[in-house]
Parts: sequence; structure tokens; C-alpha cells
Amino acid sequence: MTRAMTETNPGTPQENTPDSGPSRRGLLFGGAGAAVGAAAGFAAASIPGNAKAVEPQGLLYGGHTVAFHGRRQPGIITDAPAFVSFLGLDLEMDSADGKAAQRDLMRRILGIISKDAARLMAGRGILADTDPEMAENPARLTLTVGLGPGAVRIINKSLVPAWLKELPAFPIDKLEEAWGQSDVVVQFCGDDKISLLHARRSIQKDLRTLAKTVWIQDGFRHSRGSMAEGATMRNLFGQLDGSGNPRDAMAERAVWGGENLEPWVEGGTSLVLRRIEMDLDTWDSVDRPARDFSMGRRQDNGAPLTGHHEFDTPDLRVRDDSGFPMISADSHVARGQAREADEHILRRGYNYLEGEKAGLLFASYQCDVQRQFLPIQERMAERDMLNEWTTPVGSAVYAILPGCARGSFLGQELFAA
Amino acid sequence: MTRAMTETNPGTPQENTPDSGPSRRGLLFGGAGAAVGAAAGFAAASIPGNAKAVEPQGLLYGGHTVAFHGRRQPGIITDAPAFVSFLGLDLEMDSADGKAAQRDLMRRILGIISKDAARLMAGRGILADTDPEMAENPARLTLTVGLGPGAVRIINKSLVPAWLKELPAFPIDKLEEAWGQSDVVVQFCGDDKISLLHARRSIQKDLRTLAKTVWIQDGFRHSRGSMAEGATMRNLFGQLDGSGNPRDAMAERAVWGGENLEPWVEGGTSLVLRRIEMDLDTWDSVDRPARDFSMGRRQDNGAPLTGHHEFDTPDLRVRDDSGFPMISADSHVARGQAREADEHILRRGYNYLEGEKAGLLFASYQCDVQRQFLPIQERMAERDMLNEWTTPVGSAVYAILPGCARGSFLGQELFAA
Repeated sequence: MTRAMTETNPGTPQENTPDSGPSRRGLLFGGAGAAVGAAAGFAAASIPGNAKAVEPQGLLYGGHTVAFHGRRQPGIITDAPAFVSFLGLDLEMDSADGKAAQRDLMRRILGIISKDAARLMAGRGILADTDPEMAENPARLTLTVGLGPGAVRIINKSLVPAWLKELPAFPIDKLEEAWGQSDVVVQFCGDDKISLLHARRSIQKDLRTLAKTVWIQDGFRHSRGSMAEGATMRNLFGQLDGSGNPRDAMAERAVWGGENLEPWVEGGTSLVLRRIEMDLDTWDSVDRPARDFSMGRRQDNGAPLTGHHEFDTPDLRVRDDSGFPMISADSHVARGQAREADEHILRRGYNYLEGEKAGLLFASYQCDVQRQFLPIQERMAERDMLNEWTTPVGSAVYAILPGCARGSFLGQELFAA
Repeated sequence: MTRAMTETNPGTPQENTPDSGPSRRGLLFGGAGAAVGAAAGFAAASIPGNAKAVEPQGLLYGGHTVAFHGRRQPGIITDAPAFVSFLGLDLEMDSADGKAAQRDLMRRILGIISKDAARLMAGRGILADTDPEMAENPARLTLTVGLGPGAVRIINKSLVPAWLKELPAFPIDKLEEAWGQSDVVVQFCGDDKISLLHARRSIQKDLRTLAKTVWIQDGFRHSRGSMAEGATMRNLFGQLDGSGNPRDAMAERAVWGGENLEPWVEGGTSLVLRRIEMDLDTWDSVDRPARDFSMGRRQDNGAPLTGHHEFDTPDLRVRDDSGFPMISADSHVARGQAREADEHILRRGYNYLEGEKAGLLFASYQCDVQRQFLPIQERMAERDMLNEWTTPVGSAVYAILPGCARGSFLGQELFAA
């Protein structure tokens, strides 16, 4: 995973220069760019028009940008910023619309999102933005676009991957229609909620006549700078969430393909988005040994019960003095562990808490939902001690488009194919 | 306003040492304490049990703490962190409860909050916390307690300030019962949402049999580190919000008293909390000159229309070439400007956006609601061009208790008085 101070879209580093330039605010506040990353120590910032003395402080990140253009879309393999907003959209289509009209609609939607994303991620407002100042603090803002089955079919029927459909029904599910499949999803990630919400609203406004919002799912992790970059987040059960994620080359292969594992289209991947409600009240009554046993990991440091450190590999063969497995075969860790070489997914979940409803926006990325995600999900649905306290209430699957080059738009080459 | 890296509760600096010590996580991550504030440059952090290499980065603030104990409560005059959660509580009382039982209930509630706040603000879980790890990243967490009229009356009838009552009805109000006056409010502020929500839930759990939650109002500002510390936030209309706040000695006097302006009790103050809905859609259709004219300030840099910089004093006498006032007498700035020496309040607002509802949690602190807040509010309710796009939907007034010393609890000396 990329850990540089100024992220680049790993797809095409050569394309990341113009858009990833520091925003105006970034420059003013000394927050952007490799130059600042290289200059050690405090940036003594001064705000024009600000009569107050500003003290030296840690490196400001408001101006940090991620490049939009590239072979792959951003916002997937990069470290997850503090906030997410998933925007589910359905096409505004008339049943009488012919194929050509539908394709034109999809082309316009993808064209608009691509143009807007490039600007917003660079810290600029969209064209005719009424509040461009709200874009000036992008703080690693990324926009990532995924398509449901109907949307891919409109573009190119022959490209619809076999796995792009509703997941099979699981006995643990209590799915609510409100959080179901949409035609399009736009994933917004960033470290500042104000610029992130401004970006989301900008996209909603620009697509107003072309697509309607069917849901918004907002989530949060630890704030940037409150913990070491890349540290695993805690979910609302207090557990470190994501310790078992593949890293480096294995993450690259799981998401983007390689060796016997290919994405549905070069530079593309998939997103499974599940909204998992967590019952904090009943979880509260579970003592620490029972929690750790259900998880197969220690809550305090995330170490598997057979190890000492968070990233030690869980060893399901180790037994205790009484001959019982240290990690129960019904624990979350045991059910989730890969049994085939392909069973790796990259999770990038976010917490949510809205009124009395708390949970996790489980988001996972993988080349092939069928081969990588489903076997794990089926094992967990069958038996996983954590199911006692969790309930999936939303589910959707998206094909993530490849990235696009400058002057092009997301999915453009798929229209031609 | 305090701008130090490690905030102290300005009431009693001598009392801030033990509780304001760095949390365990703070120490591990190099984020806490004046020592780190003094050591320039990057903190090369290492996470125990984390096999990944962690790059040097800006100063980590997860371990920054604010002292709970002191002559005044924290979370008021200090710079506003990224998140707020206001928790409105009503006492669990039986109509048959006598005065002694009511006083005992209040004492227990304040005792529990005081004990818990001291621990949580220091980065420790409450006693018997099921998730103490979630407290380890306090990131300037503060808890601040205010009481409604009934609650002060229970403690000491003779101390109920004259202004502690519902505000008069204003023609602009469309108040919803859901956001009304509660017996108690606990204001949680902090830079990390996970530890802040853990703190809120801890208090709710510990008070479960004593008080019930009547509302929760969550808000956000720019993330810490995304902008220069103390920079004015933008509200969801895109305006810099709080430019006209009193600063330094004037803020001190407005909130804590001095020269002809005294708080209801030594070390106490008041909170007016108004939930103000903002109609983003109609605001979008207003062009920039009309926006600036309604506000009396430029949206881009916050400067008054008679000045160049955000903190220039608006001059209502200046006229343009045609003889019209540069700042309209009906603009927000003109209506809000002090006409008497006492008309200063310290605003510390937060944005909210929940579903389709967007707005501002207007929170202001002042010694005397009647003399400081009401004249301003009455002028704005009468005429303020911004009223076209804003609607107050919630309103409550609280007496803020003085702080407490170690071994004591909030309000303790009021019980004896």
C-alpha cells in the first residue's frame, strides 16, 4: 500500500503530475507536495488576512492530493482516509428509452463524474461551483466509481462479469431494501469532512437530471494524525478491524490480478459493499475472554490467540494444554482464513453510528467476487461466533471501472470495445 | 484562546498535571505532552506488534489531552476540535420523589460524570470499561456539563440565574420538540470520532438508570491538521463562520466575567445551543454578490465588505460611490454587531448534515444570556437577510457549572451553599 506523503495513483505515475499539484490552500498552508514532505519539521504557516499569530505545528495535510488520472482508479489500494461516503445512484431512465439513449446517458454520467473528480481531487471546485473555497482542502480526497450489472450491460453487454449480480441469500442476512443494489456507486474518501461533503454534493448537483440518489452511506475511521499512518482502525466493538488484510504484493494481486487471477477488465476490479449492523448493547455484556475467543484474536492488540503481535499469522493447528484448539474453528478468524490461494480480499471498512444504529460499512475489493469473496462469506454465514452480534442489513456488488487517462473519461474504452 | 500543543484547563494550571499526562497510546505514538510539542520535526513512531514499517510523519496528536480539573470547565475557551457531540439528558425521576431524593440523584449524576470525564479526558477508560482501548486516543477530548433550570433548582434554588429559562419565541423559529431543553447537557469535543463516541457511550451507560437520553446532536468542523490551528471553519453555506468572535481578553471577559459582567457563579458561564437548519438548495441559487451582500462579508476570505482581511472590523458608516452603505443595515454582520459594550458572545459552532437536513449547531457561551446574547438574537430575528435561508429548529439554554478540583465533583460546592 502506498505510504508516501503525497499519494500518487499507482496506475500511471507519469500521469499524476498536473492534477496532483498542490491546491492553493495547500500551498498557503504549507501542506502539500513532496517538497513539504521532504522538508522536515514544523511548517510555520501564515494565513493571509488572519490577524492572529499562528503557532508552528505538525505537517498540515489539507493540501495533500491523490491523482485522479491513471490506469487504475484511486481510493482502493491506498491507505484509507478518515471518512467515506458511498453515494448510490440510479439512472434517470424512461422505460421507453432505447439502447442508444441509455448508452448516451451512461456516457454523460461517466463523463461528468470524470471531469468533476479530476478537479475536486486536485482541490478545485467543479465548473460553475458556487462554493469553490470548500474544495480547497482536499486532504487526500478520492472519488472511485463502480457500476452495477445494469449499468455495465448498457455500456457493453459482453463485458458483464459472471459475478456481477446479487450475492446469494445468506441465512444471517436481514437485508433492507433501503441499502440495496444501485446502478452506480461513487465512493468518496478523504481526511476532511467538509471538503468530502462538498465533493459529494457537487456530484449530486451535476448529475441531478441524469441520476437520482438512492442512498448515502457515511463512515469514519480514526482521524488522520491521531494515530500512526496505516495503523489498523478499531471498529465499534473495540476490535482492530482489518489485521488480516493482504499486504503489498498479495494485496496487489488480490485487487488487480496476476498469476491465475484476472480482473474482469484490465485495470478494473470489484467492490462488495455490505452494511453490517452491530449490536453494541449485547456485545457489552460479553466478557473479554469470550470476546477474544469469538474473534480468535485479542481485542487489546489484535494478535491471533496463537501469536503475540497483530500481524502474526493465526495458526489453527495449535492446541492448548487440554487439547483444544487455541483458535476455535468457529471463530471469526478461523472462518475467514483463506483455504485456497485465491481467497484473499482487500477490506477497507468504515464505522457508522446513526441514531441507535451502529455498525460497519464492510467494503472489500477483489478481482473476482466468485472466487475470492464468496467462499469466505459462505463459511462465515454458515458458522461464525461473531454472527451472534452482527446482522447484514445491506448488500451490493459493483464492477469497478479501470482508471482513465487525461482527456478521457472512466469507461470510455469500454464503449468502443 | 489557548493555542498550546498540550492544552491546559485555563482555570487552575497547578491542577492540570496528573490528569493531563500523556495516555499510553500517546506515549507509544509520540503524540503527547509538552516534551513532544517542544521537540521539533517528525516523530518516527513504531507500533508494537505492527510488522509494517511506519514512515516518519507529522506530529501525532492522538495522545493530546486537556485537563479536566480546574476552576473552570474545559471545552469552552479552547480552540474547537474537529467533532462535537451534545448529549441531552433528562433525569429519571419519579413524581413521588422528594427533594432529598432529587438532590441525591443530581449529586450521583454529577459525581459519575466528573469521575468518568477525568478518566476519559486522560485517555483512560471508565471503571469496568469493556473497551478501554477505545479511550486511548483522546485527541483533545473534553467533556463539559451544563444544567437546565430544573436541575439547578434541585441543587440550589437560590442560584438559578434569571436568564436560565426558555428563550422568548422568535418569529423566525420553527422549533421542533425533539431538539428542546433538557435537564442536563454533556458536550463532548475531540479530534477523533472513535474516542469521542466511546466517551459518549461510556457516559450514557454509566448514567443508564439515572438519566435518559433525549437527543444527541453531532457536528463537525475541519479535521485537525487539515488547516492551520485556529483557522476559522467554513459552514455548509461556504462562509467562514466565527470571524467576528471576541478574542483574548475580550473573549475571557464575555465568557468568564470581569468589569461589570459577572457569571451566575464564580467559574461558571452559560451555553445557548440552537440548531439552525440551512437550506443548501435555495442558497445554491444565490450568486456571489448577493451572498456577500446578505452576509456583509466576502465568502472567499471572510473580510467585511469595508475591509480587506477576515479580522478587520466591519465599519457600518462607510458608503459606496452612490451613497449606499457598503455593509447593509440588514446584513448578518450589521445585525450581529455589538451595540453595547456587553454584547459579546463566544461562538463555537459545528456543522451538521444528516440525510437531507443540513445546518449549524450554534453554540455560544456568555456570562449572562440576557445582557449578552438576547439583544443580538432579537435584532437578527427581527431583520437579517440570511434568515431567508436559515430556520432555527432547536433551542436550549444551560448554566455551565464551574470546574472542580481533584477529589471533588462538578457542582459540589453548590450543594453546600
